[in-house]
Amino acid sequence: MKLKFTKMQGLGNDFVVLDGINQAVNLDRQQIRRLADRHFGIGCDQLLLVEQAQGQADFRYRIFNADGGEVEQCGNGARCFVRYVHDHGLTQNSEIHIETLSGVISPRLENNGNITVNMGKPIFEPERIPFIADQCALTYQLELPDSPVTICALSMGNPHAVRVVTDIARAPVATEGALIEQHRRFPNKVNVGYLQVIDRNHIKLRVFERGAGETLACGTGACAAVVAGVNLGLLDRQVVVSTQGGELTISWQGHGEPVWMTGPAVTVFEGEINL
Amino acid sequence: MKLKFTKMQGLGNDFVVLDGINQAVNLDRQQIRRLADRHFGIGCDQLLLVEQAQGQADFRYRIFNADGGEVEQCGNGARCFVRYVHDHGLTQNSEIHIETLSGVISPRLENNGNITVNMGKPIFEPERIPFIADQCALTYQLELPDSPVTICALSMGNPHAVRVVTDIARAPVATEGALIEQHRRFPNKVNVGYLQVIDRNHIKLRVFERGAGETLACGTGACAAVVAGVNLGLLDRQVVVSTQGGELTISWQGHGEPVWMTGPAVTVFEGEINL
Repeated sequence: MKLKFTKMQGLGNDFVVLDGINQAVNLDRQQIRRLADRHFGIGCDQLLLVEQAQGQADFRYRIFNADGGEVEQCGNGARCFVRYVHDHGLTQNSEIHIETLSGVISPRLENNGNITVNMGKPIFEPERIPFIADQCALTYQLELPDSPVTICALSMGNPHAVRVVTDIARAPVATEGALIEQHRRFPNKVNVGYLQVIDRNHIKLRVFERGAGETLACGTGACAAVVAGVNLGLLDRQVVVSTQGGELTISWQGHGEPVWMTGPAVTVFEGEINL
Repeated sequence: MKLKFTKMQGLGNDFVVLDGINQAVNLDRQQIRRLADRHFGIGCDQLLLVEQAQGQADFRYRIFNADGGEVEQCGNGARCFVRYVHDHGLTQNSEIHIETLSGVISPRLENNGNITVNMGKPIFEPERIPFIADQCALTYQLELPDSPVTICALSMGNPHAVRVVTDIARAPVATEGALIEQHRRFPNKVNVGYLQVIDRNHIKLRVFERGAGETLACGTGACAAVVAGVNLGLLDRQVVVSTQGGELTISWQGHGEPVWMTGPAVTVFEGEINL
């Protein structure tokens, strides 16, 4: 099977994007793993598949992790998806509607080439995160081996725990992050974000991604961090999020409203592989 | 600048191969780093450049590490180089002559698709490795913080230290390997191989590569390990070397003779990138 693909990245979070509309793409788990392998394949964090919508949307957007498993949502990937369908002439619209496993999202290509993605509404009800808690609260105490830590918990289509720290460089992302990711109160595990407030419109962020460890940038993690920071009264409603991979702008008008994420998406190269 | 490239691998050691004959390739250090970056570029261990020979050989073969520095020799790369110039119609010969920084090598495409590379003669004179020692010896005692270790030292165009161990799985590749790599008696640093003898025609090998850490497979490391094993009386003259990335066959007829390495080379995909 000969596959055309495009290698893309958003803030260093990198993707193999496949057009499943103009070519037949039927990949099993092992083939996805091979494509994602950085030595024996193309190499990527996630594989993105562009498909025909099943419902009213313009496209269907499927996301596979490097281990071959399908996942709900990927904010950096959504921006690359939009640039891809534009650059490959699959749509002319600047706002498009995309089916994902966690619902329809509606990203928009800005005039400056950045892409704004409606990331959906944050979910705070513990059972919908999912997170084991007696009631919905602004913060939770989470028991860890040494001592309990304070977290915010929410879902952006995938589960997030957010910690506020005073020095991002010293945040225990790899150690404490790994403990929280696997915590029994998060039955589906959790992404763990560490945020430092620079001012009310600027934070620094590091994220331990579920199943992946610390990454250069996590789109849904940036959304979760800003939502948590707004709820805690630390941030205004539009915030620049600095990550190791680059900058995102996150806007949230408050409860009941969706989160908007604006950032870059870059085509790295075009290729063709025999599978 | 638009560059066509081919991604290849030999035993998981992976390469971006560029045809510098049919397209102009003038890369600075930063551009090589970008191409080698696995998130923001194509991703590879080394970049291989095919050029016109300056002397009598068929081609000139230049090798750049992911950090942008040019290096002398890469055995897995040499096999990929041969498959590349064949598959891209740059030669019809099954044996070709290639200029490298460490002299002319003459690889041969076998009928089964494997490639045999004449890796040149091993060099044992300490000053030519380079290795600081009073005289040339079969083994050397090397001082380490805890206690001295016994090594063989030789050059295969690049410097190698070889250690014989009884259990390859427990070899201290990352820890002791790093100490030897940086040892003051190796002024240009050194690749460190750990070999376990399975029988006189089969070894297992792990290598700490200079500047890179442990890799899936190291071609010159396999040569150095077999040469050392033959000199120590542990091996016959043709030996299968099992590495994490796959198998190589190494032949050496003894002092004054070159080392021959036979193994696979695989094209992973073709691509085009804008630099």
